[in-house]
Amino acid sequence: MPPKEFALRRRRAAVALDTGKLDALIVSAAPNIRYLTGFTGSNGLILLWPGGACLFTDPRYEIQAAGEADSPVRVVRGPLQPALMKLAARKRFRRVGFEASRLAFDAYEQLRAQLPLGAVLEPVSGLVDTLRTIKTSREIDLIRRSVALNSDAFARAIRKVRPGATESALAAEIEYRMRLLGAEKPAFDTIVASGARSALPHAQPGAYPIRRNQLLLIDMGASREGYASDMTRMAFLGRPGPRVRSIYRAVLEAQLAAIDAVRPGVRAGDVDRAARRALRAAGMEKAFVHSTGHGLGLEIHEAPRIGRRQETPLLPGMVITIEPGAYFEGFGGCRIEDTIVVTSSGCEVLTPTAKELLQIE
Amino acid sequence: MPPKEFALRRRRAAVALDTGKLDALIVSAAPNIRYLTGFTGSNGLILLWPGGACLFTDPRYEIQAAGEADSPVRVVRGPLQPALMKLAARKRFRRVGFEASRLAFDAYEQLRAQLPLGAVLEPVSGLVDTLRTIKTSREIDLIRRSVALNSDAFARAIRKVRPGATESALAAEIEYRMRLLGAEKPAFDTIVASGARSALPHAQPGAYPIRRNQLLLIDMGASREGYASDMTRMAFLGRPGPRVRSIYRAVLEAQLAAIDAVRPGVRAGDVDRAARRALRAAGMEKAFVHSTGHGLGLEIHEAPRIGRRQETPLLPGMVITIEPGAYFEGFGGCRIEDTIVVTSSGCEVLTPTAKELLQIE
Repeated sequence: MPPKEFALRRRRAAVALDTGKLDALIVSAAPNIRYLTGFTGSNGLILLWPGGACLFTDPRYEIQAAGEADSPVRVVRGPLQPALMKLAARKRFRRVGFEASRLAFDAYEQLRAQLPLGAVLEPVSGLVDTLRTIKTSREIDLIRRSVALNSDAFARAIRKVRPGATESALAAEIEYRMRLLGAEKPAFDTIVASGARSALPHAQPGAYPIRRNQLLLIDMGASREGYASDMTRMAFLGRPGPRVRSIYRAVLEAQLAAIDAVRPGVRAGDVDRAARRALRAAGMEKAFVHSTGHGLGLEIHEAPRIGRRQETPLLPGMVITIEPGAYFEGFGGCRIEDTIVVTSSGCEVLTPTAKELLQIE
Repeated sequence: MPPKEFALRRRRAAVALDTGKLDALIVSAAPNIRYLTGFTGSNGLILLWPGGACLFTDPRYEIQAAGEADSPVRVVRGPLQPALMKLAARKRFRRVGFEASRLAFDAYEQLRAQLPLGAVLEPVSGLVDTLRTIKTSREIDLIRRSVALNSDAFARAIRKVRPGATESALAAEIEYRMRLLGAEKPAFDTIVASGARSALPHAQPGAYPIRRNQLLLIDMGASREGYASDMTRMAFLGRPGPRVRSIYRAVLEAQLAAIDAVRPGVRAGDVDRAARRALRAAGMEKAFVHSTGHGLGLEIHEAPRIGRRQETPLLPGMVITIEPGAYFEGFGGCRIEDTIVVTSSGCEVLTPTAKELLQIE
């Protein structure tokens, strides 16, 4: 990111602060700290106010923070909270917000213990997270590259699938390819689930052999320059029978219906409903046990959630996944997932990988 | 783990509850949930009381929880807190503890909103985490295997290092080897840092070529059957000059001195001091910018912390790392790290990898 971009983001956050009648905000979520300053360390806090910002971290990150962050850095031995609150007191901030879903109760208590007389801590819900939902064209480009890398890794790894290979060997191959193609790491634990195990939406790959005539579910994502991708594809070693084909068809129809529903102004819950309606038509609504999708960016799961009764309107620049599934205990499951971006007129599917059930002979 | 083990752990936790005069404990940290029930999903809460326990999770984990957890499971759509508090109310619990460092402020508020009249929520610090510090022989065996796997992956990957190879290609090779040897994943982001970048204690591997006549720092750990390993080794492509040799010698002496200080009853801070004293003798104390080590197990960083003024006495069964380092901006850094277990008479170094500065010609 060009440094100007971070300053711009902080200014946008400061405007949101002002709307909330807050003097300052304590930012504790690592991805939010990265978003606002460029700092990627694991231990940090930001005090942000309309006129500036200060990043607090520990000596392990002294050199790194100086290189990465474009805001002033304070290096502190021990807990960061007292140093931050000392600055807040010197600035005479009275209403100081904190990230209620991103700060542990005891860290909150440590802040409260240092609160100057007359000042208050105000829980804030999703201020920076909300800014992050709308990606700039530069961010969309970064996600596009992450998505392309991920699809490339999939294509290279899937060639090596043979009956008898284990789930974990395939997961190893997938993650190795991601890395060689320039990913920092997988964006989440790669899922490779074969046969009945594909009915576990979050299966961990194990020493289970991939067999003929069984479903094979692969859910994978890369983290590249910090930005996540996320894709699920189904494969089948052999020729799928009627039950597999009908499940696949229903899930694909649900996925296409949900993508079709995505355009600016539509509520997230409406997109979810479009997927459920398609699965209901196939008599499989009860087999769909999770949400239709989620935002992604610096994190693999971020706002907005594409789930039941979610009122958030979709807006141009939002990047989300669409991933309906149907799961049948003892038999197997099926999920199809793309990463898409909301555009001014509808949406663009970023994932280039073909969406047919991949038959491997 | 044999299911009996989980029941035993819950009984030990219940005894600690009773000591704290609590009727029940809400367990929110994922590794603590795994420790107490075997459940490995990402979304869960446990209500634990002297007579039993109940795990709450969402429909994505319905099948998995039934297979993994040996305690009753309640599958809930939406937030888990109301369902949990309903059970707490029915049981007429009055003093209910929660994990203050492992629960976000807003999740705490959601619990509080459901609190029955007359009941109170009590912040609890490290109850399950403290139980976890003392590993059973079965757990030590699991860590030993994770450590052996990690050292094996290191040996296989390091053979491939050639001048001009990038840090990220070496990190890819390391993680691929871990996976093929049976790891679920790296226990943390693998660090491969060459030249001046080795002065960043938490450097992220990048497209930087590994050059001759520069330090190369590799900090790696595997997660195997959930248990972490952690090792740092230094390599040098060519023949190290006097500055590198003197830094290496000082760090090695600090590491050996710290290991030497480990025995039951010694305070964690004393072990840290032993490392610092050795570095001070070499005039490098200020270059040591982090703690001497940390506990590890189901998490890569867990209690006890081996740092300044830490009063925790070391006890048999604790598994910790010893990893002093010295970092010189613009030149490079050096760290040596082993995983060790505290025994009844002293300690055992689990890491089998040789500790000389590895010269690669």
